[in-house]
Amino acid sequence: MNPLEQLRDLTRAFAAERDWQQYHTPKNLAMALSVEVAELVEHFQWLPTGAPAELDERKREGIRHELADVLLYLVQLADKMDVDLHAAALEKLALNASKYPAAQVRGDARKYDEY
Amino acid sequence: MNPLEQLRDLTRAFAAERDWQQYHTPKNLAMALSVEVAELVEHFQWLPTGAPAELDERKREGIRHELADVLLYLVQLADKMDVDLHAAALEKLALNASKYPAAQVRGDARKYDEY
Amino acid sequence: MNPLEQLRDLTRAFAAERDWQQYHTPKNLAMALSVEVAELVEHFQWLPTGAPAELDERKREGIRHELADVLLYLVQLADKMDVDLHAAALEKLALNASKYPAAQVRGDARKYDEY
Amino acid sequence: MNPLEQLRDLTRAFAAERDWQQYHTPKNLAMALSVEVAELVEHFQWLPTGAPAELDERKREGIRHELADVLLYLVQLADKMDVDLHAAALEKLALNASKYPAAQVRGDARKYDEY
Repeated sequence: MNPLEQLRDLTRAFAAERDWQQYHTPKNLAMALSVEVAELVEHFQWLPTGAPAELDERKREGIRHELADVLLYLVQLADKMDVDLHAAALEKLALNASKYPAAQVRGDARKYDEY
Repeated sequence: MNPLEQLRDLTRAFAAERDWQQYHTPKNLAMALSVEVAELVEHFQWLPTGAPAELDERKREGIRHELADVLLYLVQLADKMDVDLHAAALEKLALNASKYPAAQVRGDARKYDEY
Repeated sequence: MNPLEQLRDLTRAFAAERDWQQYHTPKNLAMALSVEVAELVEHFQWLPTGAPAELDERKREGIRHELADVLLYLVQLADKMDVDLHAAALEKLALNASKYPAAQVRGDARKYDEY
Repeated sequence: MNPLEQLRDLTRAFAAERDWQQYHTPKNLAMALSVEVAELVEHFQWLPTGAPAELDERKREGIRHELADVLLYLVQLADKMDVDLHAAALEKLALNASKYPAAQVRGDARKYDEY
């Protein structure tokens, strides 16, 4: 089964079993998503680059859990919006590819900065 | 093919073709992810709840593109961290289920607030 | 004394006494600011509007501390950028006033949405 | 006059003249604050450290405007919460000073990481 569809079904069931759908307006889910992303950012804020050598096991586990939380809220918000995340990502990649053709932007930091 | 693995491969190729991997430290990707999430939040900030009836077609398209951008950066950051997003999300869901048993938290707003 | 200048001096001394300036690049301070703002957002994410009646004493104290943290990082980042926050805010208010003349935007939700 | 009180009065008048107070629930202002902080973060996301030498004049101006926007929303949110930002920042600095005594944390990166 498609992992994104599986996670959508699992998060639906998780919220329903706890009667938590009442809190899950799109607006609230967007806020919760931003809070989870900040918990992820927090792990990196004082590190030089976040490369593996800068991370111990405890930090790696924390990062893994936060990455998961971000995906779980993203899946729930997309579900409320009736957005197929996989299709939307492929659509956006195609848009980005036509907006930033490799031949023209290669090695041009300013183009990257606009991106 | 697993959509998350497909997107990982496509984003790797996209960055490589443009010589953009040089910017993609985990720290920078975490920042970029937070910026994309804020562009998503921006769509909801003055709406009552973000329910479908509050959104016109232009706004729905904007939201779809931002959801995609968030997923694309999330996939790239997880890739740098060697994290399997699907496995991590299943692991986190199991942790949440044991921390917040449905029978105990059902309808308890304070429990939700801790969550 | 100007409170913003006082806080600038106090945060300088605070970091210097702890040898923490080494972590305070503008980039890192911007990340830390975003993390503090998310801790503030977290207090509001499941509330209807955040109006006083929705907040108990513990939550009000938490919000007050987070507001303070946001200001303290903002003051430190502005200091690194050699930006006078007071002057910058007055400059931006004047720009906003000429971009959104009261007579034209009054009661126009779309204008507010652009703002 | 105290700059923070002056900005509070100016932002009150600005919103009132445009009939925009209706959008300014604490929850919405917290979201707007997070969006402005992300626009600030965006300037730094691909830079090594954000030091002055990495910034051209256009970028410095953008950063100054975003710092101002963050302060303006912060002042408005604090106003809705009846929080005196100056007093709250002094209170928080005192709490931080007792939690992280200079003599004990000096040069200890792990202590900083908890901070």
